[in-house]
Amino acid sequence: MRNIKLTVAYEGTAYNGFQRQMNGIGIQQILEVRLAKLFGHELKLNGAGRTDTGVHAYGQVVNFKTSGTIPIDRIAIGSRCLLPHDIVITEALEVDEKFHARFNATSKIYVYKIYPHVMPNPFLRNYAWHIWRKLDIPAIQETAQIIVGTHDFSAFRAAGGAIISPVRAIMAVDCQFDGDILEISFWGTGFLYHMVRNLTGTLVEVGLGARSVQDFKAILASRERKRAGITAPAHGLYLKEVKY
Amino acid sequence: MRNIKLTVAYEGTAYNGFQRQMNGIGIQQILEVRLAKLFGHELKLNGAGRTDTGVHAYGQVVNFKTSGTIPIDRIAIGSRCLLPHDIVITEALEVDEKFHARFNATSKIYVYKIYPHVMPNPFLRNYAWHIWRKLDIPAIQETAQIIVGTHDFSAFRAAGGAIISPVRAIMAVDCQFDGDILEISFWGTGFLYHMVRNLTGTLVEVGLGARSVQDFKAILASRERKRAGITAPAHGLYLKEVKY
Repeated sequence: MRNIKLTVAYEGTAYNGFQRQMNGIGIQQILEVRLAKLFGHELKLNGAGRTDTGVHAYGQVVNFKTSGTIPIDRIAIGSRCLLPHDIVITEALEVDEKFHARFNATSKIYVYKIYPHVMPNPFLRNYAWHIWRKLDIPAIQETAQIIVGTHDFSAFRAAGGAIISPVRAIMAVDCQFDGDILEISFWGTGFLYHMVRNLTGTLVEVGLGARSVQDFKAILASRERKRAGITAPAHGLYLKEVKY
Repeated sequence: MRNIKLTVAYEGTAYNGFQRQMNGIGIQQILEVRLAKLFGHELKLNGAGRTDTGVHAYGQVVNFKTSGTIPIDRIAIGSRCLLPHDIVITEALEVDEKFHARFNATSKIYVYKIYPHVMPNPFLRNYAWHIWRKLDIPAIQETAQIIVGTHDFSAFRAAGGAIISPVRAIMAVDCQFDGDILEISFWGTGFLYHMVRNLTGTLVEVGLGARSVQDFKAILASRERKRAGITAPAHGLYLKEVKY
């Protein structure tokens, strides 16, 4: 059996997240059904990570086993007419039979996009979090550096998350503008459920002056979810890259 | 009566064009209904120009008369909660009672966006025309300059267009990249129906090598619509600015 690794970009707006869902359509389900047509048999994808409803991806990674013979360089092209226009396979590689998109991932980069402007932008309504009040960008940049390192991120995990270790290592957090959009990128070995959105929501509260850099440190140290800020909306979040 | 001039940005994807429609919802209709709530009376908008289904605007201009007393600097802010997120009033000005958004317009700028890349980009599917074959950009840039000047644009008007003069003056055509996106901007005193999309479709055929610069000149001179190229899709077109 061949083991195929795909890199997938998608706009999450129309879907109920990446994973197969009981109610609503997940992106994984679309990929499985459409790729089955290309490969001529049913197949089961392993995804590198979940993304919630409305969350986007530039570089989600999946793998699957196949007995199909389609050449590797025809998969991305061949999938174009099968997939809806908001899901695109950007790369296909044949990998070692032991490769697993989730278990072999060593780190991931998520990017959160914020549009700080007094008026909303109709073209960004599904792609960046609109903040109409003035943001203190240097305060956000300074606070973001607190996240770097290995910490217990209990204060920033979703309430009711699974009982797994809340310790995660963050290698880098970078805040910079791309044109009018503030991009906060988080590079880490792993992320708890809603962790990036909860960190971003609290960073924005610092930017709005509602909390200080010291408050942020105290929240992280407290390990109490109820002390942290709001959960930033899903539509500003992008799974940018999965590293192996 | 006050005369109010509004600048409006919108994503056209969800609407049947700007003008009031028999079937489907036009953006003008949405604005009239929602602004009536803000001003406390029915009102009739004059739009600077039509845009088709799927065409976008950064700077559509409308005006209307009102007896309402809402301060001018509260209109854009006040409209935010009334309008859907894909329509945004970016500026409101009180203008002379004789001002008419359409009749007083002296020129307009349209921009057509092209995404030349072997693979489609899911985030651009409604915002730029995806051309997956290689484009000869210098050939497009050279050909675009033929358009500048006063010409009979019959070859690039929609078949069955209204019986008005096909002569239009184009002040400038500019082709340049903004990141990965090729933007062709057309600045002219007026445009025939589908003229920008027909010009762009034919320019792209030059870029693909299907036609030469000389062919383009001959098409313009022929004044025959059937000799020109395809109509570029609506979703790459933006009404950027209306000048007065």
